[in-house]
Amino acid sequence: MAYCAEIIGVGTELLLGNIVNTDARDISEGLSALGINVYYHTVVGDNPDRLRQAVEIAKGRADIIITTGGLGPTYDDMTKETLARCFGKTLVYHADIGDGIRAFFAKRLSGQKMPENNLRQAYLPEGCTVFENAWGTAPGCAFFAQGKHVLMLPGPPRECRAMFQNCAVPYLKALSDAEILSHNIHIFGMGESSVEEQLQDLMEGLTNPTLAPYAKTGEVMLRLTAKAESEAVAEALMAPVLAQVREILGDVIYGVDVDSLETTVLRLLADANQTIAVAESCTGGLLAKRLTDIPGASKSFIGGVSAYANTVKTNLLGVDGILIEEQGAVSDPVARAMAQGVKCRLGTDFGIGITGIAGPDGGSEEKPVGTVFVAMATETGTFVRALHLGNDRTRIRVMAVHHALDMVRRYLTELPI
Amino acid sequence: MAYCAEIIGVGTELLLGNIVNTDARDISEGLSALGINVYYHTVVGDNPDRLRQAVEIAKGRADIIITTGGLGPTYDDMTKETLARCFGKTLVYHADIGDGIRAFFAKRLSGQKMPENNLRQAYLPEGCTVFENAWGTAPGCAFFAQGKHVLMLPGPPRECRAMFQNCAVPYLKALSDAEILSHNIHIFGMGESSVEEQLQDLMEGLTNPTLAPYAKTGEVMLRLTAKAESEAVAEALMAPVLAQVREILGDVIYGVDVDSLETTVLRLLADANQTIAVAESCTGGLLAKRLTDIPGASKSFIGGVSAYANTVKTNLLGVDGILIEEQGAVSDPVARAMAQGVKCRLGTDFGIGITGIAGPDGGSEEKPVGTVFVAMATETGTFVRALHLGNDRTRIRVMAVHHALDMVRRYLTELPI
Repeated sequence: MAYCAEIIGVGTELLLGNIVNTDARDISEGLSALGINVYYHTVVGDNPDRLRQAVEIAKGRADIIITTGGLGPTYDDMTKETLARCFGKTLVYHADIGDGIRAFFAKRLSGQKMPENNLRQAYLPEGCTVFENAWGTAPGCAFFAQGKHVLMLPGPPRECRAMFQNCAVPYLKALSDAEILSHNIHIFGMGESSVEEQLQDLMEGLTNPTLAPYAKTGEVMLRLTAKAESEAVAEALMAPVLAQVREILGDVIYGVDVDSLETTVLRLLADANQTIAVAESCTGGLLAKRLTDIPGASKSFIGGVSAYANTVKTNLLGVDGILIEEQGAVSDPVARAMAQGVKCRLGTDFGIGITGIAGPDGGSEEKPVGTVFVAMATETGTFVRALHLGNDRTRIRVMAVHHALDMVRRYLTELPI
Repeated sequence: MAYCAEIIGVGTELLLGNIVNTDARDISEGLSALGINVYYHTVVGDNPDRLRQAVEIAKGRADIIITTGGLGPTYDDMTKETLARCFGKTLVYHADIGDGIRAFFAKRLSGQKMPENNLRQAYLPEGCTVFENAWGTAPGCAFFAQGKHVLMLPGPPRECRAMFQNCAVPYLKALSDAEILSHNIHIFGMGESSVEEQLQDLMEGLTNPTLAPYAKTGEVMLRLTAKAESEAVAEALMAPVLAQVREILGDVIYGVDVDSLETTVLRLLADANQTIAVAESCTGGLLAKRLTDIPGASKSFIGGVSAYANTVKTNLLGVDGILIEEQGAVSDPVARAMAQGVKCRLGTDFGIGITGIAGPDGGSEEKPVGTVFVAMATETGTFVRALHLGNDRTRIRVMAVHHALDMVRRYLTELPI
């Protein structure tokens, strides 16, 4: 039997638009990997009546109800009370959890008095499975009642993520009976509609496995999912389809089951025992930031220069000031000189140079906003992509970084750049 | 009359957790500013039956229903069809929109054939107000039927944001009759529970205006909201409360109605005609990235060095190699030397140096993961904060950047650092 789930986010801050509902995304991703269908997300404010109504609706359309948020110590945290009432349960004080909360604060506050309302977090619905919170103070819980599985997780994203993986996943795994496996196929360099058009015939003929495309900024991901009585059978169902997708799309596929372009590039660099340094003008540190987001980046990433002002390009990177004057800071030769300069000054195998106009100002007729040059200096020569990336500052910066990463990937896998 | 709204996000990619529902956040923020209450967000997949059910529920609890997504050209885009059916309307072909779509593709594809299914986007519910999409091809629309206002916006976040502001806001403004004004009070350096405790008495006595706290990573925002017959009356209601909040919380308030710490710092720098350069080790470019996210950063931000490897600290920043050997790369003196080095090499008024252990590896008994030194070199001396920022890599990096920005803010506003 395939379970279906609804995720209910609780928090007025979500309805006011102060924060974005990443919890629903994280949990959905995890449920999808478990083969549990998510049919609805709902968000309600810190309002017991409206939460109760949302739970009543969820009872009618989901087997599993997962709430996020409203487990904290303040008066507007009322998820446990409301869910307990909806399912005819009372709340019970857990002395061990209360002691744990006191200990947590004793360590954190070093002497300051703990606000007493924190102990509200030690009350949980009778007969529930307690989800200990090793990442904060509000524990979560799960219970089965009226034919529904109810799980409650805290709202702060890192607590929610950690408790979902460590507490909810084991709980949910015990409920399921079929193996569902997925492979994520990551694509850069082809738009979603082109991917969809090229794969249309293939996709339409598929029922198990299924194949579905998803677009991110400048990227496309295809998810291939099979359901079978065993992992081996699921893999056997997917293998020929994966091979067909590879044949149709070719080298725009940069990885299967990888996290991102930057993890792919860092792995390729580490495998080849190669190092990289970056010089960024319009992206201003975004590429360095993206690479150093990844734990262990220091194995290959040596450093970078955010060369926003032209003096930085000349002083730290050794770009010829006359070149900048004659060609303009946003030009093919300056991108080349930045890449070569950072490679040389930092003594790396690869050097990246990015210069462009991210806007909203600074564009001209000849070089409008979105004009970007991305250069890659290597042992065998320097390569440049001249790009026109639209007029959205954020997108221009992200796309420039993607192109830089894609060039390194292609070089290291001996593909045309 | 105060309207209440429900936002329905349509897209299986949301339920699979491939993307996060930023559209709901963006629209909620905008509705909140208009004084329209949002009581629910719902997300459904690309499934006409479940969308229809969600719309029926929304009809029973909202005056305004706003959908995002499902307006595109592919077979699984069925928001218009479904909403039209729910409200007893048919779809009508708009020749002018069809021509516009052809023109858009002619320009974009330069010769390639437009997939014919794009013309599905030119069908809209009879009698609707068309929301032209200058940022993509799928137009949105609005209609009033069965006592409800229905608005449909495209799913891609930048199209959704732009069309909400330019099309939906004017449409909705015409519906409302009371002025609702808000001020956002931004705080760094005090936790949410402390803020709440200090303001508890004040908050409990308030009905109009209201005051509510929201936590972000390492920051707290307070939103003060008043409702009145005119802007002037609303402002007069808020002024004394804002003054009380300022008196209670003091200089941890870094701004009112500002976008972020980085915009605040860039404005202060620009006002003082001062420049800044940054040297980042554990944050690896994040501070430079955050500053250059802001259009016009180049007025004050000169550049940065991502000094991941120690050789970069010595070569580009002039940090003494012996100092690194004796004190360790993560130390007060090295943070100082990085800040002074980047200030000197790039010739700026301020230099920031950040060095720390972001983890998950690299920690020791003496310097565990989360140990970070943030230094600020100025004309009048160098200041350092020694921090212990927990064990979450992302949070450590974000908090280190916040502290660096906070030090500059405090220096420029003559507060103790």
